[in-house]
Amino acid sequence: MASQKIVFLILPEVHLLDLGGPEQVFLEAIGYGAPFEIEYCTYTKELRSSGGLTFGHIKHFSEVAIKPEDYIFIPGPNVRSIHDYKFTSQTELLDWLRRCHRENITLCSVCSGAFALAYAGLLDYKKCTTHFKRTAELKRYFPKLDVQENVLFVEDGNIITSAGIASGIDMALYILERIQGSHFAHKVAREMVIYTRRTGSQPQKSSYLDYRNHIHSGIHKVQDYLSENIHKKSSVGHLAEIACMSERNFTRIFKKEAGITVNEYTTLVRKEKIKLLLKNPDLSRVQIARAVGLNSDRQLSRIMHSI
Amino acid sequence: MASQKIVFLILPEVHLLDLGGPEQVFLEAIGYGAPFEIEYCTYTKELRSSGGLTFGHIKHFSEVAIKPEDYIFIPGPNVRSIHDYKFTSQTELLDWLRRCHRENITLCSVCSGAFALAYAGLLDYKKCTTHFKRTAELKRYFPKLDVQENVLFVEDGNIITSAGIASGIDMALYILERIQGSHFAHKVAREMVIYTRRTGSQPQKSSYLDYRNHIHSGIHKVQDYLSENIHKKSSVGHLAEIACMSERNFTRIFKKEAGITVNEYTTLVRKEKIKLLLKNPDLSRVQIARAVGLNSDRQLSRIMHSI
Repeated sequence: MASQKIVFLILPEVHLLDLGGPEQVFLEAIGYGAPFEIEYCTYTKELRSSGGLTFGHIKHFSEVAIKPEDYIFIPGPNVRSIHDYKFTSQTELLDWLRRCHRENITLCSVCSGAFALAYAGLLDYKKCTTHFKRTAELKRYFPKLDVQENVLFVEDGNIITSAGIASGIDMALYILERIQGSHFAHKVAREMVIYTRRTGSQPQKSSYLDYRNHIHSGIHKVQDYLSENIHKKSSVGHLAEIACMSERNFTRIFKKEAGITVNEYTTLVRKEKIKLLLKNPDLSRVQIARAVGLNSDRQLSRIMHSI
Repeated sequence: MASQKIVFLILPEVHLLDLGGPEQVFLEAIGYGAPFEIEYCTYTKELRSSGGLTFGHIKHFSEVAIKPEDYIFIPGPNVRSIHDYKFTSQTELLDWLRRCHRENITLCSVCSGAFALAYAGLLDYKKCTTHFKRTAELKRYFPKLDVQENVLFVEDGNIITSAGIASGIDMALYILERIQGSHFAHKVAREMVIYTRRTGSQPQKSSYLDYRNHIHSGIHKVQDYLSENIHKKSSVGHLAEIACMSERNFTRIFKKEAGITVNEYTTLVRKEKIKLLLKNPDLSRVQIARAVGLNSDRQLSRIMHSI
């Protein structure tokens, strides 16, 4: 499989966190073997971050070879600089963004990066968002936009806009989940020691992401084990061993960290797997029961009843 | 008041998120008027980030004028590079870190930045932490260290070490809370659209930080209002107005976002203020009642009883 490019368009006065957050998501994903390739580009040689760090040579955007399955991230710059004529007069850059959009490349903005997409006319009549302190300003400057409030990020066609600063991490994890699955995305989130959050607009619930807003690595190991071995019978004693704890300590710590008991959690993982397997018409109910570590189709019925 | 310096020591192969996270905390704090000053320094001219971005000129650490109330942050580099002879042979830099430590400057590491402090011998016999995948390695390389697991950050003397990557944000918010108070720290956290987290080692509970793990700006406005105006009587109708909602919608959304009802939340804020005022022996109980919007010392007794 050819690698997917994650291109960061770096604008003057960029917030390092808007860049470093999503970047780290894809760096970790590459570390886990995902076929991504990270590239940086810009339009100007005079580039410093919002905190005053200057950068070395960064490629001009016109030098980036890009294909439909790639992503362009626009980390938010200090908002004053994006209304500056120095930026708004960059017609070649705005043309390039429009061309990328037509070629079905996904454009993702973090925070005030949404203004760049708006100046390119790409957000007209689209659902979009930006930092909560700037949503009114975004509407005022660009009345055709359907600006959303109180969301971490919103997707409309091949454009995803995220709210303030750190929400760029949430958006990047969402994209990663779509490409590599929720288990993979969670591994990356944990590697970064962040909580995985969900937006109101995501209807899907997943036990990979729920009940994992803790940083206890022993409990995470058990949760990973359960996700991958739900077809096996796992005694609490065995799970406690995986967590390197006594049985009693393990059940106590699991409840404290995950918020539900280990049995409740196991049932959730099992239900999720059943739901997935039920979509396959070739599998008998007995086969499904076996695939999730149940003894009989009667046990399966009982669990399904509670789905 | 002279400004406190937040100095970032940038090492080769730095993770941008380890740098950009804490940096943004202090940039936002400066935006809100806090007297911080950000400086960057390094020891080498050949500097690129873990993702491959190169930097422009960054000051040499020996050029930084620093005083006891300042902070030095060491954002984590790619862990391979920190064991490299190119780093471990930097005796001048390690000397500088030791001197700063002796001069009572607070040293804060993010992720693998802890290894830099360990190579300087500054973590010997100290409680410390690093990325959960590196705690065993840190212990193995430096057996004298009291390495903690499953914490976001840990403080020992004038050294604070944080866990993986994004936990540098949590550490920075903790430092900001200590200097500027929890209300201020929360404002900054919200500005960055992040959840404020607490470590197990923080015993203090604060309604400024609890029940605010949402991003609804209307509800945040009401929570801020309550914190600042607990001496006034605020009807639900009035609070709904502040949130720009109907009364019915407001009580529903408040419960949904904050997790508790607006009345329960108001009581928590009131209790917290009472606890604070009770420490002042010059205040009568009637005065305290009035200061938190209660009619009588009887109402105060009832609430105190439930503290």
